[in-house]
Formats: sequence, structure tokens, C-alpha cells
Amino acid sequence: VIAGFGDRVAARVAERSSQLVLGLDPDPARLWPRALELAGGVGDPPAARAAFAVAAHCALVLEAVAEQCVAVKLQVACFERLGAPGWAALAEVVERSRDAGLLVIADAKRGDIDVTATAYAQGFLGEVPTFFGPIPGLGADALTVNPLLGADSLAPFAEAARASGGGLFVLVRTSNPGAADVQDQDLARGGTVSDALGRLVAELGAPGVGDSGLSDIGAVVGATAPGRLQSLRELMPHAVFLLPGVGAQGGRVQDLAPAFAPGRAGGLVAASRGIVNAHRETGGDPAGAARAEAARLRKLAWRLTG
Amino acid sequence: VIAGFGDRVAARVAERSSQLVLGLDPDPARLWPRALELAGGVGDPPAARAAFAVAAHCALVLEAVAEQCVAVKLQVACFERLGAPGWAALAEVVERSRDAGLLVIADAKRGDIDVTATAYAQGFLGEVPTFFGPIPGLGADALTVNPLLGADSLAPFAEAARASGGGLFVLVRTSNPGAADVQDQDLARGGTVSDALGRLVAELGAPGVGDSGLSDIGAVVGATAPGRLQSLRELMPHAVFLLPGVGAQGGRVQDLAPAFAPGRAGGLVAASRGIVNAHRETGGDPAGAARAEAARLRKLAWRLTG
Repeated sequence: VIAGFGDRVAARVAERSSQLVLGLDPDPARLWPRALELAGGVGDPPAARAAFAVAAHCALVLEAVAEQCVAVKLQVACFERLGAPGWAALAEVVERSRDAGLLVIADAKRGDIDVTATAYAQGFLGEVPTFFGPIPGLGADALTVNPLLGADSLAPFAEAARASGGGLFVLVRTSNPGAADVQDQDLARGGTVSDALGRLVAELGAPGVGDSGLSDIGAVVGATAPGRLQSLRELMPHAVFLLPGVGAQGGRVQDLAPAFAPGRAGGLVAASRGIVNAHRETGGDPAGAARAEAARLRKLAWRLTG
Repeated sequence: VIAGFGDRVAARVAERSSQLVLGLDPDPARLWPRALELAGGVGDPPAARAAFAVAAHCALVLEAVAEQCVAVKLQVACFERLGAPGWAALAEVVERSRDAGLLVIADAKRGDIDVTATAYAQGFLGEVPTFFGPIPGLGADALTVNPLLGADSLAPFAEAARASGGGLFVLVRTSNPGAADVQDQDLARGGTVSDALGRLVAELGAPGVGDSGLSDIGAVVGATAPGRLQSLRELMPHAVFLLPGVGAQGGRVQDLAPAFAPGRAGGLVAASRGIVNAHRETGGDPAGAARAEAARLRKLAWRLTG
């Protein structure tokens, strides 16, 4: 039997003494200088050079901070926008992240009707059956998904994840101000839209709760709305919370305690620009500054949950 | 000045006497036999062969039915799941669709916070600034987007679309049964979640209404929920409605009249499997059966709105 994703997260968090998730959202106009140097010798076309530089940048960041982290969250948009070479770079970064001992979360926020959800799930978590034989997907351990289309749009993702020991993080309450427009709206039957999404997560995740008490279906809950953490935790007692928005977006680790009610692996603290661009605040070389910031965040979260 | 997307849709619908959108969601395990023959001579690896076959399949379908259509809706999941070669196939199909005189709708249902929405918009609708110079995106005319993250997550998409004469189709009421789980929920302040999404669409689209009376910000409203069309049309008087779900999902063209209140280009009728797999119902060769079904749907919609 393959261990469920909840148990895998719990084991990995304990093993690495970290709940920190490195977010990689490389902007090909703002890469670490060393990555641009490395790409200097690569020929045209520009898309191939940019994709090479993006992969090199991610490799450098991983080298600097992977040790401090339990997982990596790859922002798929930042690779996809470079077309086919970008997609190849994404596959390379997935491989490198695994080699560094990290769980790989593809932050793709996909969501679609059943047959299309199956296609996305094949591509990120499973394999694609074709006339020419099966084609392996990206091999992510987990995928972020958008639940606006309802339970039947999430089921194919959950099935694919469960079959491979993988997991999902369902958007429940995102970290941006606009979350108020839809997610924070009160429903006539009581609770907010986010609460209703939280109930979907709890139902979908019920068959996937492992020995650790954690399910393979987690939730994205922004670190920028700590006031929502307590009630969402009550609605989803077994979900691993992926907590983006620390740093650049204003979220603070010390406000996240309710996320960790089910234990140290109950919350995964995601930081992207706060780590990768730390040198812009502190000076020094990018790798050293990133490592110091990652170590600080890791320690902060670990102590909070001790 | 670049014409706005609403005006471009209106002109193209008049020019081609069609409101039919060909949906392409190629399943590499169920392609037209001729596409597999064409891919027979292509070497390994399987992903490259499958991507070649997918592109060939789309080319054959376009050859058969493009004449009946005003636009093509490319299901991005079906290309993306094949990795980098799949993304190259997608770019090829975009080009071929344009050459056939069709507007290109990338059905990607993307949605994310501002900086990431910008990245997706660059990739689908604009270009990507990099250290090595700008890289052209996919060159779609329009993109489907998911509004769960609220207005600030849609703004970068709208900005990118408007800058290039492109448009958006925002998910308002999808065609699947699970739409009831979230979108049909009643809000405490009145109306449903879909109604609130419709209001977001109307606001976002207000500055983009052209001489035709149509805006560059449209809405996805499933043909499977015709009962919702009237009230959603009142909330979004200027939006082009993209109407998926005709055929395989059970929607019927004759139930869609309220969508066309602003004129013949007020609604775009999308059919995918109903056209591409028509030969499975009617027998005969795939191209002929697809052409006949597309011609039937086109006529049905055109008469309905005469």
C-alpha cells in the first residue's frame, strides 16, 4: 500500500523539522544575476534562453534553501508563460526538487468539469493513456485546485491524487484582498462561501484520513486572514492547511497557530518572494540572504508549534 | 486603435453567419483514425508522437468544420497533459485556427492573485518581458478565467486582453451538475453566487463596451441551465455569453434564446464532443459526420436569432 498524502506530509515534516514551503514563482525579468550568467552561453531563441535561466535560477534557490524546507510550491504560471521550453523547465525543477528531498506542490489552481479535470489530473499527478502507450505526467506530489465548479469537478483530482499517494490543496480562502468579493460573502443558509468550500474539502477528504490524523485533501488558507483560521480549522479538522501570503503579502507566521491544531504538520507555511528577494531588504548575496530568511521562518513556525 | 473584442466578435459573427464555436478537447486515446495514421511515421518518444497525433487530429477537424464556425475553443488541459510537446502542439493549433479565419478562445479557466494573473495573461494574451527580450505568448484572442479570487484577480487579465483587442470569458454559471454546490447557492444579501459573479463581469466589462453594444468581458453560462439565462442576461446586458454544454452534456440550442438579447453575437454556442464524435452516433466518416453536425448546429442557432 502507498502511504496517504496526509501521512506522508506528517512524516516528512517530522524528518526535516520544518513546515516551510519554498514558493518558486520565477520572473524572467528579475532572476538572480548568477542565473543570467549561466544562461549567457545558451543560444537563441529567447524563449529557450529565458527558460534555461528560469531553471537555473530555481536550481540556485533550491541549493540555497532546500535544507530549510519540507516542500516546494511551484507557480505553474511562471513556467507556462514561456511555452514549451517553460514546460520543460518546470519538469526539470520538479525533478531537482525531489532530488533535494522536497515534496512538490504544483500551484496550478486548476478546476474544470469532470472530463477536463481528469485531463489535468493525468498531467500533474498521474499519467496519460495514449494510443502510443502511457505518458508520465509531471509527477507532482500535490496540486492546488479551484473548487468553484463544485464537488463533481474535484472528484477526478481526488481520485488521481489518492491513487498515487498524492494530495490536493483546495482553495478555501485565498490571501488576496479580492477574496472578500466572493469567498467572504455570507450565504443565506449561514456561513460564508469559504465555509461552504471548507465543507466540500472535509467531505472529499474524509476517506483519505491517515494514521497521522491528516487527510490527503488539504486547503489553501491565506496567512493574510488569520481571523478565519480558527473557524475554518473547526470545519476541516483533518486538512493540511497550505498557508501562502507570508512576507511580501503581509502575513505573519506568529498569527498562524490555529492552523496547527492537528499537530505540527497541520500547517505548511509558504513563502516565495519573501525568501527569494530577501537580499533586496537585507543586502548581501541572494543565496545567503535567502538562506537566512528561510532559516528564520522555519524556526519561527517550529517554535510556534512546539 | 485596435477594435475592442466585443466589436470583433460582432463583426466576425456577421461575416461568417455563424455563432458556432468548435470545441477541441483531444483525447490522445480517442483520436480520429486518420490522425493516428499520420503520426505513425513519427519517431519516439511517445509524448512527441501523441502530441503530433493530437495536432493532426485538430487539423483534420478544423479542415472539416472551420467553415461552419466563428471561433474555436481549445481545451488547454488536453494539450498541457502532454508536457512540452503538448504545449508546442497547442501553439500549432492556435496558428492553424487563425489561418482558418477563426477567433481563438483558450479554455484554460485560469485564476490567481494579481502577480500570477499577470503571468498567465502574458502567456495567453500578451508577451513576456525577459532579460533576453520579450517572448510572444500563445496569441489567443480570448481566455476563460475563474473569478473565485475576486475582482483584483481578474483585473490583470482584463488589462492584458484590452491592450491587444482580446477578451475574457469569466465563469459565471458552468454547465456541470456540481455548479449547484457553490454557484447556485443563495447569498444572504440576495441573489446567488452566480449573480454576484455576473455583477463582477458587468463592472469589469463596462469600460470595454464597443459600438456593437458588446463588451470585451464575456461570461461562460452553461447551455445546460437555460433557466438561468434570462436573469443573468439582465445582470450582464453587454456581455458575450459563451455557451458550452450543447450536445454531449445535454444542452439544446433551441433553449438559448435569452442569451441573444443584445443581438446575434450575444451568444456563442460551443460544441465539442457532439461535433467531433458525431460519427459514433450517425456512422460514416468522422469528417463528414462532424461537418453535418456543425452545419446543423450553426443553422439552428442562426435561425433562432433571425
